[in-house]
Amino acid sequence: MNLVRTSLRTILDEPRPEALERWFGDITDPHERGEELAGLDQERAGRLAHLIGPAATAGLVESVDRHTAADFLGRLPLATAVGVLGLIRTDRAAAILREMPSPLVVEVLARMGRDRAAPLRTVLAHPPTTAGAHMTPVFIALPAETPAGEAIERVRESAADGAVAFTLYVTGDGGELLGVVAFRSLVLAPAAAPVAELMRTRVVTVAADADREEAARLLNAHDHAALPVVDDGRIIGVITADSVAEIVEEEATEDAERQGGSAPLDVPYLHASPMKLWRKRILWLLVLFAAEAYTGTVLRHFEEELEAAIALAFFIPLLIGTGGNTGTQITTTLVRAMATGEVALRDMGRVVRKEMGTGMLISMAMAGAAMIRAWMLGVGPQVTLVVVLSVAAIVLWSALVSSILPLVLRRVGIDPAVVSAPFIATLVDGTGLIIYFEIAKLVLW
Amino acid sequence: MNLVRTSLRTILDEPRPEALERWFGDITDPHERGEELAGLDQERAGRLAHLIGPAATAGLVESVDRHTAADFLGRLPLATAVGVLGLIRTDRAAAILREMPSPLVVEVLARMGRDRAAPLRTVLAHPPTTAGAHMTPVFIALPAETPAGEAIERVRESAADGAVAFTLYVTGDGGELLGVVAFRSLVLAPAAAPVAELMRTRVVTVAADADREEAARLLNAHDHAALPVVDDGRIIGVITADSVAEIVEEEATEDAERQGGSAPLDVPYLHASPMKLWRKRILWLLVLFAAEAYTGTVLRHFEEELEAAIALAFFIPLLIGTGGNTGTQITTTLVRAMATGEVALRDMGRVVRKEMGTGMLISMAMAGAAMIRAWMLGVGPQVTLVVVLSVAAIVLWSALVSSILPLVLRRVGIDPAVVSAPFIATLVDGTGLIIYFEIAKLVLW
Repeated sequence: MNLVRTSLRTILDEPRPEALERWFGDITDPHERGEELAGLDQERAGRLAHLIGPAATAGLVESVDRHTAADFLGRLPLATAVGVLGLIRTDRAAAILREMPSPLVVEVLARMGRDRAAPLRTVLAHPPTTAGAHMTPVFIALPAETPAGEAIERVRESAADGAVAFTLYVTGDGGELLGVVAFRSLVLAPAAAPVAELMRTRVVTVAADADREEAARLLNAHDHAALPVVDDGRIIGVITADSVAEIVEEEATEDAERQGGSAPLDVPYLHASPMKLWRKRILWLLVLFAAEAYTGTVLRHFEEELEAAIALAFFIPLLIGTGGNTGTQITTTLVRAMATGEVALRDMGRVVRKEMGTGMLISMAMAGAAMIRAWMLGVGPQVTLVVVLSVAAIVLWSALVSSILPLVLRRVGIDPAVVSAPFIATLVDGTGLIIYFEIAKLVLW
Repeated sequence: MNLVRTSLRTILDEPRPEALERWFGDITDPHERGEELAGLDQERAGRLAHLIGPAATAGLVESVDRHTAADFLGRLPLATAVGVLGLIRTDRAAAILREMPSPLVVEVLARMGRDRAAPLRTVLAHPPTTAGAHMTPVFIALPAETPAGEAIERVRESAADGAVAFTLYVTGDGGELLGVVAFRSLVLAPAAAPVAELMRTRVVTVAADADREEAARLLNAHDHAALPVVDDGRIIGVITADSVAEIVEEEATEDAERQGGSAPLDVPYLHASPMKLWRKRILWLLVLFAAEAYTGTVLRHFEEELEAAIALAFFIPLLIGTGGNTGTQITTTLVRAMATGEVALRDMGRVVRKEMGTGMLISMAMAGAAMIRAWMLGVGPQVTLVVVLSVAAIVLWSALVSSILPLVLRRVGIDPAVVSAPFIATLVDGTGLIIYFEIAKLVLW
């Protein structure tokens, strides 16, 4: 970061083309760009778009996150915004429109040519987490008898339109997908060969209403360029590799937020107000508080034991903390493996066996550590024995619960990402205390 | 999943082409494919590759994760494996080779033609988390004076080679990158126009030794097809959009594992043995145990107070648990925002203000909840007051620590993802207890 560089705002107050040019060259980081765009008022935003023209404005808008892009376009004169959106690839333009207030979206679509508005409406009609919402409905569909030479011409034309497509789709009369042809096969074939002879018929497709993660997974695994999106057997769009990176990134962010014990933010962190953050966080905090309150009941139940051996209290945070940590390690790894599709319900047995094996090894190591710690606190051999046995039991208990719970939730249709670190810690806290005091009762009395 | 479907193993024992064909059509999920491939012994693996031929084997290998792919190729006869690897795009082939034992890699490279081995060696020479490790070193470089017509011919030839590249790079005598030309501009230009007149000279590039996340971020933001990788100003490869999805996914997995308080696994979860899981987890568990042990010291220090008012003990897990939960919500959101590049060091002030604002709102709500809970346990007005004040103070303290710590760690060069849920819970446990008992001393005595 160059500390003496000029901000876009300042450049626009006394516009010099070289300074603007230099800004574009210097500021390549998308977030820095976004911050600077967000800092422009209506007048300066309009001036910028006017100075650099619609094509460069479209490039700029595409290089920042869609929330910032939507805000920025909202500050441009309507006609300018419509012009810029017309130059952005359909799937990206739709993603930006989704972040705009709906009255503005209606106005923008009304102002656009029908050619452009229709595909945008198609994409916007699909809910945001489905495959259909991330497709571009612009692709080359050819009848089976099209000669290769003509198909190449179609690619050239599409290239001239700015929407290059190097995978072509062969469709039947009703729009049903018959096969795909790679540009490469067209180039190598005689010009007169019909595409039906060149196409691959074993095509991996995704349903328009499938989860977008499903689309990402399939595209990652099977094809390097695009995945056809079908509705009732008919191809209605394609999802490209760069959309996949975005889907993967957003899903990972949502899961990370859930795993931290909060509802997904839906907006970039810096765009979220304290009030919004509060709303996303407070529900889980209160639920966890209510669940954790159970520990108070457990402790009051064992009040006599606690008064008789106050040294037992010293180990409460350590024991339940260790249980929570062991469980958190397992659930985060497992929830992630389930999110990437690696672990499925069918693997339940393998997962539990693996985790119980690991749990044994871990409980031995932690029992050793607990013995050292009890000896250091000088609590006597009996309390030491209680602590050592408890830590071993709590670690195993936590491993069992943590390896089963995410799979069980998936089974009943709940996103396993809700098994957050705070969730598992809370669950193990109460039950861990019961284990601790029951062992104490057995050993001490 | 079709329960009566035939496994690949069974099909291979009595190979019928239709059954194999059906298997490829039915099993499209990459993980299911991987499981089935992993279940083939040396003989069956060889038989499969022989039956479907090198091209289909290459497609199959590309559709599973690279660990499974490496294992599978390792079970094929060397000549077959070499042939298959020769048909896989360089960046993917390199990723697979990285997972093979090095003596085998040496053998494989030695058996390959020099044309093919040399680019693989180039990629393998870069450490796995750098941009260079994810590039494909195959791209079209043209001298500035090349006419457009000739450039189009080069694209056609590359298409015939199987490595289609629709972005072309214009380089100087020393290989330095002068600009990029899109296929589209070539198509639209007169055939005699030199590429130097058609190229864009403002090119976003990434250094070969830059972090791969940096490459993913730049490619996501600036170009939809490929990002040139440079070394000392010379272009040495390109990173394509589909590599980005993979980088984003792997980084998200690593961060998730770190956030769960464990070291990244480096292999898919189901490939990890209990011993390996133990090794990745035990270090953090012991460190956290040692840190958490401090809570015992704190509690022993306040032993008298605890004996005088045993009711204080009832609230220990609840108070420190709530502190941990509040902190975890903040650090996970923040660490993720830092991983995607949204939040940087320069945002420290904004982050802390935002989180302190949110913390105020949350501490009020939690104080209310604590009051209800204390009243339910019937501990009297004085302990209630202590609990209410403590929860408010602990929530604010946790918010402060959690919002500053990830940024401070980044500042000193430590990956903020190590601020896991267990880490922040442990940190808040000890300090939270001090806050609790100091408030208790003030109010009760």
